[in-house]
Amino acid sequence: MADDDVRTGLTTVSVATLSAQLRQRGLNNVTVDGVYPAKPGARFAGRARTLRYLPHREDLFAERGGGFNAQKRAIESLGDGEVLVMEARGERGSGTIGDILAKRAEVLGAAAIVTDGGLRDAAVVAELGIPVFHGGAHPAVLGRRHVPWDIDVPVACGGAAVLPGDWLAGDDDGVLVIPPSLVREVLDAAIEQERQERFIAEQVAAGAGIEGLYPLGPTWRNRYDEWLTNN
Amino acid sequence: MADDDVRTGLTTVSVATLSAQLRQRGLNNVTVDGVYPAKPGARFAGRARTLRYLPHREDLFAERGGGFNAQKRAIESLGDGEVLVMEARGERGSGTIGDILAKRAEVLGAAAIVTDGGLRDAAVVAELGIPVFHGGAHPAVLGRRHVPWDIDVPVACGGAAVLPGDWLAGDDDGVLVIPPSLVREVLDAAIEQERQERFIAEQVAAGAGIEGLYPLGPTWRNRYDEWLTNN
Amino acid sequence: MADDDVRTGLTTVSVATLSAQLRQRGLNNVTVDGVYPAKPGARFAGRARTLRYLPHREDLFAERGGGFNAQKRAIESLGDGEVLVMEARGERGSGTIGDILAKRAEVLGAAAIVTDGGLRDAAVVAELGIPVFHGGAHPAVLGRRHVPWDIDVPVACGGAAVLPGDWLAGDDDGVLVIPPSLVREVLDAAIEQERQERFIAEQVAAGAGIEGLYPLGPTWRNRYDEWLTNN
Amino acid sequence: MADDDVRTGLTTVSVATLSAQLRQRGLNNVTVDGVYPAKPGARFAGRARTLRYLPHREDLFAERGGGFNAQKRAIESLGDGEVLVMEARGERGSGTIGDILAKRAEVLGAAAIVTDGGLRDAAVVAELGIPVFHGGAHPAVLGRRHVPWDIDVPVACGGAAVLPGDWLAGDDDGVLVIPPSLVREVLDAAIEQERQERFIAEQVAAGAGIEGLYPLGPTWRNRYDEWLTNN
Amino acid sequence: MADDDVRTGLTTVSVATLSAQLRQRGLNNVTVDGVYPAKPGARFAGRARTLRYLPHREDLFAERGGGFNAQKRAIESLGDGEVLVMEARGERGSGTIGDILAKRAEVLGAAAIVTDGGLRDAAVVAELGIPVFHGGAHPAVLGRRHVPWDIDVPVACGGAAVLPGDWLAGDDDGVLVIPPSLVREVLDAAIEQERQERFIAEQVAAGAGIEGLYPLGPTWRNRYDEWLTNN
Amino acid sequence: MADDDVRTGLTTVSVATLSAQLRQRGLNNVTVDGVYPAKPGARFAGRARTLRYLPHREDLFAERGGGFNAQKRAIESLGDGEVLVMEARGERGSGTIGDILAKRAEVLGAAAIVTDGGLRDAAVVAELGIPVFHGGAHPAVLGRRHVPWDIDVPVACGGAAVLPGDWLAGDDDGVLVIPPSLVREVLDAAIEQERQERFIAEQVAAGAGIEGLYPLGPTWRNRYDEWLTNN
Repeated sequence: MADDDVRTGLTTVSVATLSAQLRQRGLNNVTVDGVYPAKPGARFAGRARTLRYLPHREDLFAERGGGFNAQKRAIESLGDGEVLVMEARGERGSGTIGDILAKRAEVLGAAAIVTDGGLRDAAVVAELGIPVFHGGAHPAVLGRRHVPWDIDVPVACGGAAVLPGDWLAGDDDGVLVIPPSLVREVLDAAIEQERQERFIAEQVAAGAGIEGLYPLGPTWRNRYDEWLTNN
Repeated sequence: MADDDVRTGLTTVSVATLSAQLRQRGLNNVTVDGVYPAKPGARFAGRARTLRYLPHREDLFAERGGGFNAQKRAIESLGDGEVLVMEARGERGSGTIGDILAKRAEVLGAAAIVTDGGLRDAAVVAELGIPVFHGGAHPAVLGRRHVPWDIDVPVACGGAAVLPGDWLAGDDDGVLVIPPSLVREVLDAAIEQERQERFIAEQVAAGAGIEGLYPLGPTWRNRYDEWLTNN
Repeated sequence: MADDDVRTGLTTVSVATLSAQLRQRGLNNVTVDGVYPAKPGARFAGRARTLRYLPHREDLFAERGGGFNAQKRAIESLGDGEVLVMEARGERGSGTIGDILAKRAEVLGAAAIVTDGGLRDAAVVAELGIPVFHGGAHPAVLGRRHVPWDIDVPVACGGAAVLPGDWLAGDDDGVLVIPPSLVREVLDAAIEQERQERFIAEQVAAGAGIEGLYPLGPTWRNRYDEWLTNN
Repeated sequence: MADDDVRTGLTTVSVATLSAQLRQRGLNNVTVDGVYPAKPGARFAGRARTLRYLPHREDLFAERGGGFNAQKRAIESLGDGEVLVMEARGERGSGTIGDILAKRAEVLGAAAIVTDGGLRDAAVVAELGIPVFHGGAHPAVLGRRHVPWDIDVPVACGGAAVLPGDWLAGDDDGVLVIPPSLVREVLDAAIEQERQERFIAEQVAAGAGIEGLYPLGPTWRNRYDEWLTNN
Repeated sequence: MADDDVRTGLTTVSVATLSAQLRQRGLNNVTVDGVYPAKPGARFAGRARTLRYLPHREDLFAERGGGFNAQKRAIESLGDGEVLVMEARGERGSGTIGDILAKRAEVLGAAAIVTDGGLRDAAVVAELGIPVFHGGAHPAVLGRRHVPWDIDVPVACGGAAVLPGDWLAGDDDGVLVIPPSLVREVLDAAIEQERQERFIAEQVAAGAGIEGLYPLGPTWRNRYDEWLTNN
Repeated sequence: MADDDVRTGLTTVSVATLSAQLRQRGLNNVTVDGVYPAKPGARFAGRARTLRYLPHREDLFAERGGGFNAQKRAIESLGDGEVLVMEARGERGSGTIGDILAKRAEVLGAAAIVTDGGLRDAAVVAELGIPVFHGGAHPAVLGRRHVPWDIDVPVACGGAAVLPGDWLAGDDDGVLVIPPSLVREVLDAAIEQERQERFIAEQVAAGAGIEGLYPLGPTWRNRYDEWLTNN
């Protein structure tokens, strides 16, 4: 399965389902917490590129804050289907991305931007085509709280470790990190899980009780198998 | 007044008004704080059923986490007009309810689900008919942070004590606990308070100042009495 | 430039841009953090009037809580284009403004209400014409957490110092305080900055890279000057 | 009873006991929370003088931060037995008092300094004769987070409202605000409560159970009366 | 091994070591976080008895707050070597235990008191013989924030689930919950681990590097075996 | 001035004084906040070495958590006078250093360890010769919350950016980062500032008022100059 197929596949299942599959494989610490889509309903999948901010320090900002800094280089280097993940230490007292750079990322084909820091120009960004998951709107520029530092290094974002090349998926439930070595297996299992859950949801809507149905016990599994054959 | 009439009545007044009436009777610690409706604009009233989670502990989860656990038993036992209140200690690092169980609660006629923990499948749940008030969306399953433990015991939810059988009412301002012994008196007083406030709001919209009007002083009370007669 | 022109001008530029201009003049601590518009998309500008709450204390509330208290006097005294800024110490465990008083402020021509405390009657207030920026919905009345105390004194709101007469501007990115001595200069500069950013955004949408474009380097500045001439 | 006698009396009883007596009179919101003595074991009582800081804002600090500012005027104006209470909004990211000003307060006979902000020179201050209750040690000067603003105005400190002239008492359990109108009654009652608790503690140490003893039921009250006669 | 031997054994090893042994057996969520000994250096071990507080609610407090309430019954029922664990939801705005009840627990032979709420009479309690681990000193009585509710039910304390009968151990590093089924195995392994660490610490003090020494690699393990023979 | 002289010099002045001098040079964001010495009264100065932890992730921990991992390599590589600064994201739910590794650092001549994470074996570490500044005691091993990742990279610690080679100084007021390019100038100025403050403290102890004395105005400066001559 090529990356494009993985990416497409990941957007057909929910982050909640993918999270359950990772948990079944022993991975419980893979959620980027405290980030929200600028526009509710947004979803995405893609591979991580990373950008790391350090806490604002006046002397370091003087050296690294201006011009074509790490933030701008990170944006400019984005490629098709990539997700830019920013480490902002959960600090929301300034923006970490705004409308112009987000638009540039969109033009470059990036799949999403994820930051545990603030978002400037929130209303404009919400109308862009690229999903931006962030920690809260704030009008101040990056330099109020951060020094743009490094790109393509491991980062911590929303309490999760993210390495360049990791898969990410996001929807209204949040953002999930998926190790590349597991992504295909997890995706296949997620597709099957959602198939079962569609069957279960139909039964529940029709009045069935959940004991033995959710998760599927032996009796309901037979009926699921029939349903599968007929659908 | 039968329970059904109380329940209907409670949904005709705002939670803010009910809160003011409880305060007048000395009850200031009756708000479930930090919970939000999955779909803005939702409102509900009903009597509490309860579900208590303990903090995740690996050995206890092995005993009580799987199968037809307390969470599922709680859902399955819900009856018409009941509100399931979950104690999740304000921990939002996992879901405490998802789309399938919420749908089952809806089918059973439950009035609402209130949890101070997280919500999975937030986008789907927002489209259900049953209001779900929660502490934040999260993709992880319950077991990441909780062990489902007990049903129908007193709980703490969003900083409020809730006993099985307590009345609850919720709208965009939040969720309120109403002791059963006070519910009729509080409801009657709330209906009268809102009647006055409709009159006051009309006067304010027409340009009246608030001194002596809000709350009603002697002069304005006379005019309110007239207004009542005419309306 | 008269106050009315300033006020009109401030609503044509974004809070993010104004914030950047204040930062260029050495002002980094001028954002009211943690407040959100009752209705997304709201924006306003105006000069500050202030209202200060003290923490609830039973004896002080008995003296100052009832009747035509400081909160009501503050509302009643509002004039055209004024913004009422409330100091609630970031305490969100009660409302600090509700629908009737907000409506009165609207009738009096006030430009906005900003509180770092809670909002009662959130759904009704969201439908009013006056923008209300607040720290969160809560059904309880003011007295649960506050004693209304003083009007027209310097206040702290959302971490920012606000003096009576200061300018404020708000939109979805947040609320900003602008010292009166700087407001015209900052407004003019903001207008020019947004003009440049419209140009830049056009180029980015058309596929241009950001190096040398954002911010404008010498080459792109020439093209900007041409664009200005042609637009 | 003169102020000096009140002050002496207040230091013979514990803050916990005084708190219980205030609660019996309906006052539950009178504790300055989150402040700790620079030197454990410190205790004090005295009447409040106040100092209010605003959040740091560069233009306001330029006007009011330097020279013989409000902080220094507050210290310099302290008199015998007075307690300086500082409102620092619980912000601990800078000092709000240091060794030299604390020493000056001590020389002037002040009873204590209470701040919900930070403390500079913590090790030196711990060795002074004047108790300083604070929110945490921090090396930065005041101006990092605050503008010294006003003296002798009502303040919020550690979540409590404090008016100039209020009584304060502090020990390892924390700091308490006592309205002047209640101080004598509360002090007398506290002295009696501690007398009873000495009796109770003796009985508990000797093996008595607490039912009917704590609080005193009829049987134990008789024995307490005897004990009183004999002691 | 009788309970007494387990208890004695547990106090000879550190909580850090016991924690490491539990982790090796898959138990990572067994620490009571955010509690501190009233007197630094205190240590204890014993089996859990429990006490649960609900959030303060005026009507419930009227029913259950006074007289020989659940808190007092819990204390009075303590037996030799038992540890009373209180669920206070991490709420530190009131005491949950004070000097008289703590003394009563000591007289009854209890091993310790652990609460994630506040402590009254902190200075006196620090001088008692019974270790009290708590969330912070506070002068207010229990009723300010809590209703004493139940004894001998499962509780959440400091983020950990504690069942009646669970083992607990505490020292300056914190408090640990140990499931009874694992306690002997964990204790034996902890004793061996500390033996190794004494050897390792001796080598480090003598200048050895940690690679291959900590944890013991093959070479150093041989020398450890010799050391064991000689000690 | 050689590094050794700088280091010695820095321990003769307080962190508060050094902080004031950095502020005068425009550096306000140089404090490592929320860290405390294992043994009160500890002080140190030295140059930074760094260690970065990522959030715990099961697959990454499997790769990098065990054996001679980054944490152990960092400790083992410490040289005379160096300060190991750990980035733990302020996460205190596990230890990040314990007694054996701290002892190894001491033997190697390291000046201090600074971590914004937890400390294991707190009581033992407090008795070592090497100062350890940390965010709180916790019994769990590193792996509960962290993956040891990198050494000698820029880190964020307690909200401050720290680069390898930066100077650090710590005492009971906290920990400060000093850019190498400024250290000599700042140290000299700090020594002079403390000289003045000794004079001022003497005057205050003798009863002088602070106006014109602190900071030194013209009159008092003359007397300070005399005092300097005589001392």
